[in-house]
Amino acid sequence: MNFLGWTARRIAMAAMLAVAPIWQAAAQDLASWNDGATRNAIIDFVTAVTTEGGPDYVAPTDRIATFDNDGTLWSEQPMYVQLAFVLDRIKTMAPDHPEWTDKEPYKSVLAGDLKGVAASGEKGVVELVAATHSGMTSDEFAKIAADWIATAKHPRTDKLYTQMVYQPMLELLDYLRANDFEIYIVSGGGIEFMRPWTDRVYGIPPENVVGSSIKLKFQMKDGVPTLFRQAEIDFIDDGPGKPVGIQSHIGRKPIAAFGNSDGDIQMIQWATSGPGRRFAAIVHHDDAEREVAYDRESSFGKLDKGLDLAPDEGWTLISIKDDWKQVFPQ
Amino acid sequence: MNFLGWTARRIAMAAMLAVAPIWQAAAQDLASWNDGATRNAIIDFVTAVTTEGGPDYVAPTDRIATFDNDGTLWSEQPMYVQLAFVLDRIKTMAPDHPEWTDKEPYKSVLAGDLKGVAASGEKGVVELVAATHSGMTSDEFAKIAADWIATAKHPRTDKLYTQMVYQPMLELLDYLRANDFEIYIVSGGGIEFMRPWTDRVYGIPPENVVGSSIKLKFQMKDGVPTLFRQAEIDFIDDGPGKPVGIQSHIGRKPIAAFGNSDGDIQMIQWATSGPGRRFAAIVHHDDAEREVAYDRESSFGKLDKGLDLAPDEGWTLISIKDDWKQVFPQ
Repeated sequence: MNFLGWTARRIAMAAMLAVAPIWQAAAQDLASWNDGATRNAIIDFVTAVTTEGGPDYVAPTDRIATFDNDGTLWSEQPMYVQLAFVLDRIKTMAPDHPEWTDKEPYKSVLAGDLKGVAASGEKGVVELVAATHSGMTSDEFAKIAADWIATAKHPRTDKLYTQMVYQPMLELLDYLRANDFEIYIVSGGGIEFMRPWTDRVYGIPPENVVGSSIKLKFQMKDGVPTLFRQAEIDFIDDGPGKPVGIQSHIGRKPIAAFGNSDGDIQMIQWATSGPGRRFAAIVHHDDAEREVAYDRESSFGKLDKGLDLAPDEGWTLISIKDDWKQVFPQ
Repeated sequence: MNFLGWTARRIAMAAMLAVAPIWQAAAQDLASWNDGATRNAIIDFVTAVTTEGGPDYVAPTDRIATFDNDGTLWSEQPMYVQLAFVLDRIKTMAPDHPEWTDKEPYKSVLAGDLKGVAASGEKGVVELVAATHSGMTSDEFAKIAADWIATAKHPRTDKLYTQMVYQPMLELLDYLRANDFEIYIVSGGGIEFMRPWTDRVYGIPPENVVGSSIKLKFQMKDGVPTLFRQAEIDFIDDGPGKPVGIQSHIGRKPIAAFGNSDGDIQMIQWATSGPGRRFAAIVHHDDAEREVAYDRESSFGKLDKGLDLAPDEGWTLISIKDDWKQVFPQ
């Protein structure tokens, strides 16, 4: 796995000031899904595993569904939201770091030169992540992330990032919850970056968020116990890391998994490999008009191998263009 | 932290064949607790945080309680149960390893010579753990652990290890659950070693178990996805590791924590450091007659610094001798 790719990937987050959680407003009946094979496949699966006495019945405690976040529950274009956070944070922190003015990769960030940032390579991006994600306590970082997501806006739509979530997927979360599924996010994004807002936006509480992490160190600070964020990778929850993250956090195998990129393949293989009925789906971003069309060549959320595997493996492809009546909440 | 100590520590587990979970049989009213200051302190705390409109009210989602396992929920004497598992496994595996006959630390294990095992030092114990805990898939290991705990018996009482749980603590778990607490185990023991039986014995499901771990690696084996257990430490959930494990798995701070040894101090400091009403208790093993009396000098579950800190910090000391009518289930 490419560390740069992951670094960018784990850089993702959102939350909003609205009092009512977005997910409560979502319809329970998959209203934004077009009638058709995809919607039917989802309903068939849920009906099968919830029909008591049926051959595919699964007890509620084992109804576990895992969801990727970037590109599956919310937009990951034109860049991972967490990367936008990193760039914003560098600008916010710059007044306290006059030395950044002449130093790469900071100089390029401050000049808004993304090509210059990319030219700094993996080393440069790691430095930016370390500068923005470590050196503070976990509580301090949660506040920084929550404050940012409360006002940060998507560069193309000028909406809050937390409004760039997929309405049909919110409805799917609701539908699964209504059928006693326990839902987890399993994302390459930073775990502490997502937790401040996932409950409000998706109805998914902190303990149900699995993500990438940096090392935490317990230490007393002026007599107060803190968890200090170290400039060292702890775990990369992407690709082959996703089943590991699932086992570590949940300790049970999901019976359904939803993703959108090659980084979700192993999660899907893991979830679909157990006994009994299983379900996997991949969101295919094929709608240039209402969102962005991308797959095999994309820097963010590349879907190449997964697109080839899906038909043979029986994974459902969700076509945004054909399957979704509406992409984003009104 | 002493790695040997941890290695021994993480070596702990249990389960039983009984159909009815033990915890369901426990009384909801702390019946095995003597009337007195300790029982009252627990009830006062729970009443305070569950009284709507009261100054100490805590919403159900934030009612998180963490429990150490060895010595807090079940016996850790004469040795951590997981260490007994290691020794048993070496004996079981020996026929396939003729080379062990003349090789330490295996030779000492096979001869039942615990002093010889101890003489092999940290390196020897690590080797024993690696030989018994790695080199198989997570599913295979879960089955090995479950099979062992189903029949393995405590050397002194000849009871199943899963019967060597503390009746008053089972009642406490019930009492907290009845008051909408979410309960987690946070143990130095191996996470995959506990999960096969914690639901049955304590009513604590796999996803609510936090423990030490070795590295897992996702790999396809004959076309089937597996998580392969590597001979490498991933995380040590003891001492300063406990708050880190709590943050990683739960992402919220507990409002109550229960332990019995110095390895629980940081968990208790973390849980009691937030705003609002908090509660911490330490089980003090002071009953030589009904269990084992040990604290400052014990190899397993040493309680020294914690005993000094408790009075000043306002942590409740649970005296087995004075506070418990009954130690083990009938």
